[in-house]
Amino acid sequence: MKNNLLESLSLPEDLKKLSLEEEQELCSEIRNKIITTVAENGGHLSSNLGVVELTVAIHRVFESPKDKIVFDVGHQCYTHKILTGRLDKFDTIRQQGGLSGFSAPDESVHDPVISGHSSTSISSALGIAQAMKLKGDNHHAIAVIGDGAMTGGLSYEGLNNAGRSGANIIVILNYNEMSISKNIGGLAEYLSKLRIKKSYRTLKSTTRGIISAVPLIGKPVSNFLSDSKGVVREKMLHSTIFEDLGFQFVGPVDGHDLSDLEDALSYAKSLGGPVLVQVNTQKGKGYKPAEKNPGNYHGVAGFDVKTGLLPEHKFDFTDAFGQALTRIADKDDRVCAITASMKYGTGLQYFKRKHPERYFDVGIAEGHAVTFAAGLAEMGMIPVFAVYSSFLQRSYDQLIHDAAIGNVHIVIGIDHAGIVGSDGRTHQGTFDIPFLTTIPNVTIYSPSNYKELESCLEKAVFHDTGIAVVRYPKSGEATTTVCESDYMVTNRSSDTLVISYGREAGEAEKASEKLGCDFMKLVKVFPFTDELTSSIMRYSKAYIFEECEYEGSIGQKLKSVCPNIEVHAINGFVPHMKVCEATELYGLSENQIELTVGKGQTDAEA
Amino acid sequence: MKNNLLESLSLPEDLKKLSLEEEQELCSEIRNKIITTVAENGGHLSSNLGVVELTVAIHRVFESPKDKIVFDVGHQCYTHKILTGRLDKFDTIRQQGGLSGFSAPDESVHDPVISGHSSTSISSALGIAQAMKLKGDNHHAIAVIGDGAMTGGLSYEGLNNAGRSGANIIVILNYNEMSISKNIGGLAEYLSKLRIKKSYRTLKSTTRGIISAVPLIGKPVSNFLSDSKGVVREKMLHSTIFEDLGFQFVGPVDGHDLSDLEDALSYAKSLGGPVLVQVNTQKGKGYKPAEKNPGNYHGVAGFDVKTGLLPEHKFDFTDAFGQALTRIADKDDRVCAITASMKYGTGLQYFKRKHPERYFDVGIAEGHAVTFAAGLAEMGMIPVFAVYSSFLQRSYDQLIHDAAIGNVHIVIGIDHAGIVGSDGRTHQGTFDIPFLTTIPNVTIYSPSNYKELESCLEKAVFHDTGIAVVRYPKSGEATTTVCESDYMVTNRSSDTLVISYGREAGEAEKASEKLGCDFMKLVKVFPFTDELTSSIMRYSKAYIFEECEYEGSIGQKLKSVCPNIEVHAINGFVPHMKVCEATELYGLSENQIELTVGKGQTDAEA
Repeated sequence: MKNNLLESLSLPEDLKKLSLEEEQELCSEIRNKIITTVAENGGHLSSNLGVVELTVAIHRVFESPKDKIVFDVGHQCYTHKILTGRLDKFDTIRQQGGLSGFSAPDESVHDPVISGHSSTSISSALGIAQAMKLKGDNHHAIAVIGDGAMTGGLSYEGLNNAGRSGANIIVILNYNEMSISKNIGGLAEYLSKLRIKKSYRTLKSTTRGIISAVPLIGKPVSNFLSDSKGVVREKMLHSTIFEDLGFQFVGPVDGHDLSDLEDALSYAKSLGGPVLVQVNTQKGKGYKPAEKNPGNYHGVAGFDVKTGLLPEHKFDFTDAFGQALTRIADKDDRVCAITASMKYGTGLQYFKRKHPERYFDVGIAEGHAVTFAAGLAEMGMIPVFAVYSSFLQRSYDQLIHDAAIGNVHIVIGIDHAGIVGSDGRTHQGTFDIPFLTTIPNVTIYSPSNYKELESCLEKAVFHDTGIAVVRYPKSGEATTTVCESDYMVTNRSSDTLVISYGREAGEAEKASEKLGCDFMKLVKVFPFTDELTSSIMRYSKAYIFEECEYEGSIGQKLKSVCPNIEVHAINGFVPHMKVCEATELYGLSENQIELTVGKGQTDAEA
Repeated sequence: MKNNLLESLSLPEDLKKLSLEEEQELCSEIRNKIITTVAENGGHLSSNLGVVELTVAIHRVFESPKDKIVFDVGHQCYTHKILTGRLDKFDTIRQQGGLSGFSAPDESVHDPVISGHSSTSISSALGIAQAMKLKGDNHHAIAVIGDGAMTGGLSYEGLNNAGRSGANIIVILNYNEMSISKNIGGLAEYLSKLRIKKSYRTLKSTTRGIISAVPLIGKPVSNFLSDSKGVVREKMLHSTIFEDLGFQFVGPVDGHDLSDLEDALSYAKSLGGPVLVQVNTQKGKGYKPAEKNPGNYHGVAGFDVKTGLLPEHKFDFTDAFGQALTRIADKDDRVCAITASMKYGTGLQYFKRKHPERYFDVGIAEGHAVTFAAGLAEMGMIPVFAVYSSFLQRSYDQLIHDAAIGNVHIVIGIDHAGIVGSDGRTHQGTFDIPFLTTIPNVTIYSPSNYKELESCLEKAVFHDTGIAVVRYPKSGEATTTVCESDYMVTNRSSDTLVISYGREAGEAEKASEKLGCDFMKLVKVFPFTDELTSSIMRYSKAYIFEECEYEGSIGQKLKSVCPNIEVHAINGFVPHMKVCEATELYGLSENQIELTVGKGQTDAEA
C-alpha cells in the first residue's frame, strides 16, 4: 500500500480540505504506517490504532499549535506525530537519535508537554487553558485521556479543578474499556454503563420514550419532563459524574465515525468553558490480531505483520518474580499481591491464577497501592506491591507517611529498575535508589539473577521489617554467579576493586575478570555495613558502576565514607535507545568499564 | 466545670450504657477539655470541636479496637483520644514525651494507623477491611474524612477501589464546607448541593412530593415512581457520585444530633459492604469564637478561653514570602501563585488581594498543583507553588515527569522547611533537600533572613531555569547577617570551619563566633560549585549542621567530595516537641554545636 495521500498533503493544514472519503483513505494509510513501523521498531500498537479517526477529527476541528492537544500517557500520539510534520522520521521512532515514542516538545511545537506517565493530561491542559484565559486567548486546551488513566487520582484532581474553572478546556475521554489490562474499580463500571447508551442526548429522549410507553400516565409525564426546568428535571434526568463536577457533557460518540466525531467536537468547541466529550473506541482497531487481543499488542517488541505473530516470549526477571512470589505465597497465606493495573507487566498473572483472593489490582493508582498495602499490613498481612521503578515515584509520600513512620512492614517488587531502553526518559528506572534511600526504615536488594531474586524476596517477605524492596531490571539474568549473602568479593590480590550490583554487575564482573582486578557484587545494596566499607577501604582504588542517577546513588553514599571510590553513574534523563547503547554511552558497558579502570591502573603505574 | 462523667466512666466500654442526656453531658465535658487544653498547648481546635458527637456516636455503634476507626488527617481525633484511655495524658498533647496531636498506633490499640497527611483514610481503611474479609472477620473499617480531604486524588483512588470491593468499609464524610480555608472545586459545589437537602431519603420523597403537586398528572406519576424499579427509576431519582462509584449512600445526617447519628451509623453498619454516610457538622461547634471564625482556630498556638483572644501574630517567613512574592508579581504579570488549600498557611493572602486573577487554590492536590504549574509555564507564565515541605512529598513524580524532564521553569516556595515542632513526625520538613536533589535541573536556596529570602526569590523567578526552590522555616529570621551571593565565609584564620544554612545558620553562626572558628553560610545550597568545595578543603576540619535527614543531606553530598567534613544531620523521624527541644536533642543547638566542635578542637590539639 502506498501512502499517496499522506505524502502528497501539507499537514496538518491540508486536513481541512479533505472529503470524507479522502479522510477515510488517509486513516487507512496512517493505520498501515503505524502497523508496519511498530512491527519493525516495537512500540505501542493497540492504543494508537484506536485513536486514528479521533486524532484526524481533532486536527480538523481544532487548529494546532494554537489550540494545544495533550495526549495522556503519550503512547497514543503516533497519528498525531504523523499528522504534524514527523512522517518522514516516523521510521526512527523509539530508536537512538530518532523520534520518541511519547509526546516530546523538543520534537515539535505541536507537542505542548512531555507525557509518558498516566493521568497528567487534565492538569497539564488546565494549566495551558488558564494561561490562555489570562492572556485573553480564546483557543482551547484539549486533553485526550483513556478510561484507564481516569482511575489515577491526579486525573480526578484535574477534573475537580477544571470543572468550575471557566477556562476553555475540553477533556476527550477515550473510552476503550481497558488501560493495559482490563479496567478496574467503581469508575470503570460506571463508565461501562455510560458506554452502552447510544448517546447521552438519546438517553434523555429514551427515558422519555420508556415513560411515554407506560399506559395512561406516560404521555403527560413525558410532556412534563420535556417542559419542566430546573431542579426536578435535573433530578429526573440522571446527570453524569462529569456534569456533577461542573463539566458540560457531550457523547458518547462512535470514535471511528469521522463525521460524528467532527460534529461532536465542533459542538464541544462551540460551547466554551469546560466540556467533557466521551468517545467510544476500540483498541487495536483495523488490525485483526490486535482487535482480538489488544492487551497482547499494547506494548510490543515487534511482530510479523502478515500473521500477527509476536516474538517468542523469553523468560525474564518479571516471570521469575511472579513465579517466586507465587511459591512464597503457597507457603504463607498472609502474603498478598498488589498491582497498579499491570498484571502481566509485573508477572502477577502467576499469582492471580493460584491465589485470586489475595490478588488486588487497584487501577493506575500507585499512591493508593502503598497506603492500601499499609492497611493490609496493619492487620497482619504481608503485602507485596509489584510496580515499575518509574511509577513508584508516585508513592513517595505514601511510603514515608503511611509505611515508614510507623515502620509498617510492606514489600515492594520493583520491575524495570535501571535503564529501560526504548521507552526513554519518562520511564527510566534510575531514581528508585536515590529516592528510596532518603526514607528511614528501608532495605533495598538488587539481585543480578533469578536465584538471588528468590532468596532476596524470601528475606524481604519473612525476615525484614519496615519497607523491604527487591529491584530487578527489564531483562534476563546478568550473571549466573550466585551470591548467598549481602555481598561477595573475589580474591585476586589486586590493588583495584570494581563494585556493582543488579544487571550492571554482569558487565562489571566480565570487565574486572579481564582486567585481573577484584570484583565486588552487592546484593543487599542499602543500608550498608561498616564491614562492607572497611573491605572497600583495603584497596588503594575502587570504582563503582551503576545504572542509577548520580545524586543519591549508592556510589555517592559509599564515597562519603570511602574516599578511594570513583563513582560512575548517570547524570540526567537517559533518552530512548537500546539498553546496550545506553550503557555504552554512559560508560557502563563491559568495554567502557575496561577502558576506565584500565586507564586508572596505567596512570597509577606511571 | 468538672469532668464528672469523663472521670467516672470506664471508656470506651461504658459509653454504651449512657442515656441520651448523659451522652450530651459527656460531649459537653469533652468539648470543655479540648478547649482548655488547646488554649494551653496549642493544636487543632475547630476540626476537633466539629466531631465530638460524631466520635461519641461512632464509639457507641461500633466496637473499637475490633472495628477499626481511621481519622483522616488525624487532627480530628482528640475526642477519640479522650474516649480511648488517654484522658489522663491529654494535657500533654503535642508536648515532648506527651501525646501526639495526630493518630498514633504506638499510643493506643485504638489508633490503627499513623495519620497526619490528608486523604489517606479511605485507602488505609480499605486495606484493613480487605484483610478482615480475607480472615472471615465481620467487623468494620471506618474512615472519617472531611470534604476538604476529599479533594485529594488519593481519596478518589480509595473510593474507586472501595466501591466495588464488597468489603465492610464505611466512609463517613464529615461535611463542614471547608478544609483549612474555604473549599475549592467541582466536588465542593456538588457536595454543597447535597448538604442543603434534608436527607437523601427525604429527597426522594420530596421529588415525589413536587411531582404529586403537579395538577392532573402528579399523583399517577408519583405512584409510578414509587412502584417502578430498575433502570427508569434509577435515572429518575438522581443518584450521588458515591452511588455511581458503588457505595450505598446514607444521609445527610445532622452531625450534632446524637440519636440521628446513631440511627444512621447503625443502619450503615447493618447494610454490610461499602457504605458512605454523609454527616453535616459545624467546625468550631460549641465555642463561639471558633464557630464564627473556624479558619482562625484551625491550628493555633494557644488562646485565651474567656475572650477567644489569639496571641498577637508575629511577622514570620510566611509573611515575608507572601509579601515578597506580591512585590515580584507587581513587576511582572507572568507571575502566578498556586496553593494547595493553604492560602493563609503559605502567606498567599497578600498575593490574592493584589492579583486575584493570577492566584489559584487547587484544593488539597499537591500533585495537580505541580503539573498544572508546568502547564502554565509551558505558555510562558512563571508559576510559584507555595507549599509546606512535608506536603510537597506528594509531588515527587510530577516534579520529575512534568517539570524536570522538559526543564520547565517553575518556582516552589517551601514553607515549614526543617524541624516543625509540635506537629511532629508526620509534618517534619526534613526530606525536601534529600528528595529534591535526586531530581535533575533543580536549584535550591535556603535563606536565613527575609532579605535573603526576597533576593533568592527574585533569582528563582527571573534568573534560574528548571525547578527553582526557595525553602524557609516555620519561624522568624535566624540571623540578620545578609549574604548577597551563594555563600559567605568568615575570615578568622582558624583551621576549623563550621558550615550551615537556613534557620540552623543562626545557631551555627553564634557557636562558631564563640569558638573562634570560621563560619560558612550557604544560601544557594544546591547544586554547589568546585569553588565552594575547594574553599572547604582548605580547612583541616569542617563540620556541617543541618535540619535535614542525613541520607541525601547537603553534608553527605559535600562529604563525598570533601572528606574533611563531619556531618551532623537527623536520622529518622523527629517526634513532636518544641523546635528548640529538637535542635538540642539532635545536636543542632548553639550549645550542642559548641560542645561538638569544641571537643573536636581539643582532640586535635591533644
